[in-house]
Parts: sequence; C-alpha cells; structure tokens
Amino acid sequence: MLGEGAEFDVIRRVLKHARSRMAGHASDPRIRIGPGDDCAVVDGLALTLDLSIEGIHFRRDWLDDEPCGYRATAAAVSDLAAMAALPMGVLAGVAAPDGGTAEAVMRGVADACATLGAELLGGDVSRSPGPVVIDIAAVGSCDRPVARSGAHPGDELWVTGSLGGAATAVAEWLAGRVPSDAARAAYARPAPRLAEASWLAERGIPSALIDLSDGLLGDASHIAAASGLRAVIEAERVPVHEAAAGRADAVELALRGGEDYELCFAATPDTVPPHLAEFAARFGSALTRVGRLEPGEGVMLRDADGTMSQPGALGYRHFAEGGS
Amino acid sequence: MLGEGAEFDVIRRVLKHARSRMAGHASDPRIRIGPGDDCAVVDGLALTLDLSIEGIHFRRDWLDDEPCGYRATAAAVSDLAAMAALPMGVLAGVAAPDGGTAEAVMRGVADACATLGAELLGGDVSRSPGPVVIDIAAVGSCDRPVARSGAHPGDELWVTGSLGGAATAVAEWLAGRVPSDAARAAYARPAPRLAEASWLAERGIPSALIDLSDGLLGDASHIAAASGLRAVIEAERVPVHEAAAGRADAVELALRGGEDYELCFAATPDTVPPHLAEFAARFGSALTRVGRLEPGEGVMLRDADGTMSQPGALGYRHFAEGGS
Repeated sequence: MLGEGAEFDVIRRVLKHARSRMAGHASDPRIRIGPGDDCAVVDGLALTLDLSIEGIHFRRDWLDDEPCGYRATAAAVSDLAAMAALPMGVLAGVAAPDGGTAEAVMRGVADACATLGAELLGGDVSRSPGPVVIDIAAVGSCDRPVARSGAHPGDELWVTGSLGGAATAVAEWLAGRVPSDAARAAYARPAPRLAEASWLAERGIPSALIDLSDGLLGDASHIAAASGLRAVIEAERVPVHEAAAGRADAVELALRGGEDYELCFAATPDTVPPHLAEFAARFGSALTRVGRLEPGEGVMLRDADGTMSQPGALGYRHFAEGGS
Repeated sequence: MLGEGAEFDVIRRVLKHARSRMAGHASDPRIRIGPGDDCAVVDGLALTLDLSIEGIHFRRDWLDDEPCGYRATAAAVSDLAAMAALPMGVLAGVAAPDGGTAEAVMRGVADACATLGAELLGGDVSRSPGPVVIDIAAVGSCDRPVARSGAHPGDELWVTGSLGGAATAVAEWLAGRVPSDAARAAYARPAPRLAEASWLAERGIPSALIDLSDGLLGDASHIAAASGLRAVIEAERVPVHEAAAGRADAVELALRGGEDYELCFAATPDTVPPHLAEFAARFGSALTRVGRLEPGEGVMLRDADGTMSQPGALGYRHFAEGGS
C-alpha cells in the first residue's frame, strides 16, 4: 500500500509484525480504513498524525517559529483533504528548547486551525534537548472517504493547481539566495485543498485520491501501488508553479519537489472535462491531466514523443537536510 | 482546566489565543470534550496525542529501543483509560538517527498495540538529527466519557493499585544503581487501567477521573482545578508500590513520582466501599482512598494528626533530565 523508499520498507515490516501479533483477533468493524492511506478512518472520522522535526522537515533559519507551526499544521490537515474529509479538530504537541519558542510555534498552530476551520482540541508542550519538534494529529469528518486504492486501468491522473512552488523556495534557500515572495508563500503557507476535495468527492469524480506531499512522482507511485497499477506521468503536461517559471529545473521541481499540498486523483476518462469550467470558477484554480494509470507497477515518465523512461529515485528528499 | 506548572501556563495562553481566533464561529456540536482533559471526545471517539523525546521523557541507556516504544504507547493509551474509553487504534510516528532504531521502536509500539487491544492504524518513520522522538495518537470508543471536571465538594479521592514504582526505577538509575525487577517492570511496562476505568464508569462511580502520569499531587491538582475545588491528600494513606517499600523517600516517590499510569478518581462518600471486594476479586488490585475534595483551590497535604501543609512544586519533573 506504500510506494518506494527506505522509510516505507520499515513501515511495511512493522505493519507485518503488527498483523502477526494481532492474528486471530477479529478486526474492529468500526475501522473503515486502516494503515497505508493518508488517514485512518474510524466510524465517520478521518485521523492522521504528522511529525515534523527541525533540521529534517524544516529549518528555523528559513521561517520564524509561528510560520513553522502554521506550516506543520496545514501539512497535517492536507492529509484530511487527501481522503475528502473536512477538518474538525487538531491535537498538537510541541517540544522546544525554551518556552518562548514553544509558545510561538503553538500560536502558529492555533492560527492555522482558525484559518482551516479546525478547533484546537488539545495541546502538549515540553522541553526538547535540541531540535524543535512539532507533532500534529488532525481529525476530520469523513462520510465518503476516497482512498488511494480505487483507481482502475485506463484512469486518467489529474492534479489541482500548480507544482514546484515550495521546492523553488527550498532550492533558493539551499543556494544561499532569498526566495521570491511567491515561492516563500508556497512553502510557508500551504493551502490544503479541503473544499476542492469534497467538491470532487460529492460528484463521485475521483476513483483514488492523495495529496501531494512527497512530490508528484512519489505520490503517483503511492496511488499506483495501492491500486495495483502503474502510473505514467507526462512531464510536459505538469503545471509548473509561477515561482518556478523560467528555472532550468522547473519541471524537475514540479515532478519531484514535494510539499505542494495540491491534490492528485485518478478518474475515468471523460469524467473530469465537463467539470473544468465550474471548478475553475469556484476555486480560481485549474485541474490538469498529468498522466494515466495502466496495468503494471511503479511509475514511468512519458516524453512528448512517446518515449517512456524510469524516473529514478522518487522518495521524498528531506529538503531541510539538503538535496534537490 | 489545567494544574500548576510553566508548560500549562503556555498551553493556557495558546488556548486563549486560539479561542480569540475562533471567536464568532459556532463550536462544532460533535466535539463533546475539547482541550483541557486527558482526551478530546469527538462523536463517540476519544482522541489523545503524546510526544516522547529521548533525553526529556526517556533515556536509551535505561531501556532498549523496543521497550521505549512499548512504554510510550502504553502511556498514550492510558489517557484513554483516563476518560473511561476503550482503545481502538493507534497512529505512531517515530524519528530516529537510523532505520534500525526506528524499526525497533516501532516493533515495541506494535507489541503494545497488540497487548492493549488497539490496531496500529498508521505509522510514519523519519530521520532525526539527534534524539529519538516517539509520537503516539490513540483513539478509543467513548460512549460515556468521564471528565476531570465533575467532582463535587466532599467527594473522596481514590486511586487504583500502588504508586511510586516507576519513580523508584528512575531514582535507582539516576543514582547509578540497577533497579529491582519490580521497579524496572513498573517503569518499562506500565499497564493502563482500561478495564478498571470502564468497570467503574459502567457503575457510575467516578464523578471525575484522571490517570496518574504527572504524579498523584500533580494529577489531583488537575482534577481540583477542572472541578473548581481543592484536593486534600492524606500522605499516610497513599499506597506505596512494593518496589519503593523500605526507601526513606518512598512516600515522596508515591506522591510526586509520576508515570504510574494508575487511575485517580473522585466519588461521592460511601459509593466506593460496597464495590471494593468485587473490584479486588476481578482485577487483583486494590482501590485506596487517598484524600478528598473541598471548596477552595490547589492541592494540600494533610498529616495523620490533621496538620495541613502546602506540598511545594507539583509539576511533573522530567525524570530523564534528572530530578526526583
């Protein structure tokens, strides 16, 4: 149910161990979706957990403490969008070397909650011996969850918005430059596509849905793996964020950058185009077809002339550690 | 709704900020219990989040990695017991300097899930730049939540089991000695009082309920603050764990040690004694009256001769940092 990457191998082995330990126990029927998707779904609630650590997932010389809290919260809430759930509440834990930092991060968490329509349901503050740690559990209402696993051979792959904005900011910081306002905003203040996901799900459009946190290639591979298919991405179709426009690596950033928090979904051919105008009018944002699903496994890139190639490593590179 | 201590002051200020940001929004009626208790309760589900950081909440020279994962999970699940909820599932995030450590911690998480009757609903593994970080969200079914806030003046305060065992292990480690097996087990393998809490709640016994994570004085102060009362603890009544017996500081460890994961609850006088024999027969464990609630605020100690005194600092001392 997970794509490529060492961290996913660890999780696969642990889940196997967990299943062997629970062998013989009947699964709780209230658990509608278990591990392997963006959220677990229990009764009508979607639940997700997201751990962000300074030096791995974010750097404090890039953003002040409040935006770090905002961003971590928005990233967790985006996992609700990935199930077509709507946010209800957030539980937040923050560890920091001093109380002032913890409080600033928590204010950012609270601001994100207010902006995204979630109540702050609980908080836990502790000391850290070093890095700032931000720990967000989000809960949403989810009557009609859309999993990663429902895609069919022949389905088209679509994305919302444009990709590579956050990755452009990271690339600029890593090069010692100051990102443009557009790039910085894409990184610091992601806007989870909550209303968009619900709107699509209400119309029964997505057969499989994910949010773009690991990069388009990585997340398309998650949909492909969960659905037992191969994803084929047409690089020249991928909508590049305005902040990346003109860069030589713009398409690479859009394909692999991650942290866009846009949606990627599969849909039967011809079901999306009749809705494009209404979607654009309602959300001020485009839907773009970026590829398709076919029998097989993994993810492939397809050039404009039809040449297929392996895209190389897909795994999320922890930007704060370097890379890109 | 929270007791003393600097971390609680931060949380209070953040929750005030969050409320000001949400002013004018109607609260979601599905949120039955919001911040300030051991769990939030949304529809019929109790939700809790617990962040454990190496060097603050645990030390890896005291326990191997698997027991660290087990213990962090049991501690989080104990917050379900504190609402009289029963565990359904756990979401776990682990960050570690290497994949082998992360996997060992996660195996301990999975073992605790199997032992405690929770499904592992999701996992997230990442690198850490230093300390091991364990992040547990637990979800339980909670048709009849028992909050901290329901105690009345004159109610008695009761505890399950005996206290100070985990603190004895920590005191021994900090003194450079090897703890007894009993002390080590109390620290490494806490047994959340899930069935006990449900049994008590089914009988309508507790007017207020909490689990003992911060130490009896600290947690009694949480019940007192949430209920608008003062807690009076009778030190000579407090049941001391066998591992602490004979130590000069045994009563102090039982009063302040924390991490016992026993229950503390308030009950109308004379409602508990008729159930003592059945409780003992069913759970192999005692219920002990340790004090009462009265008008006022804070927490006081009452000697055998009736002298009242302020207990001094109550806040949870992060043992792994030293202290006790």
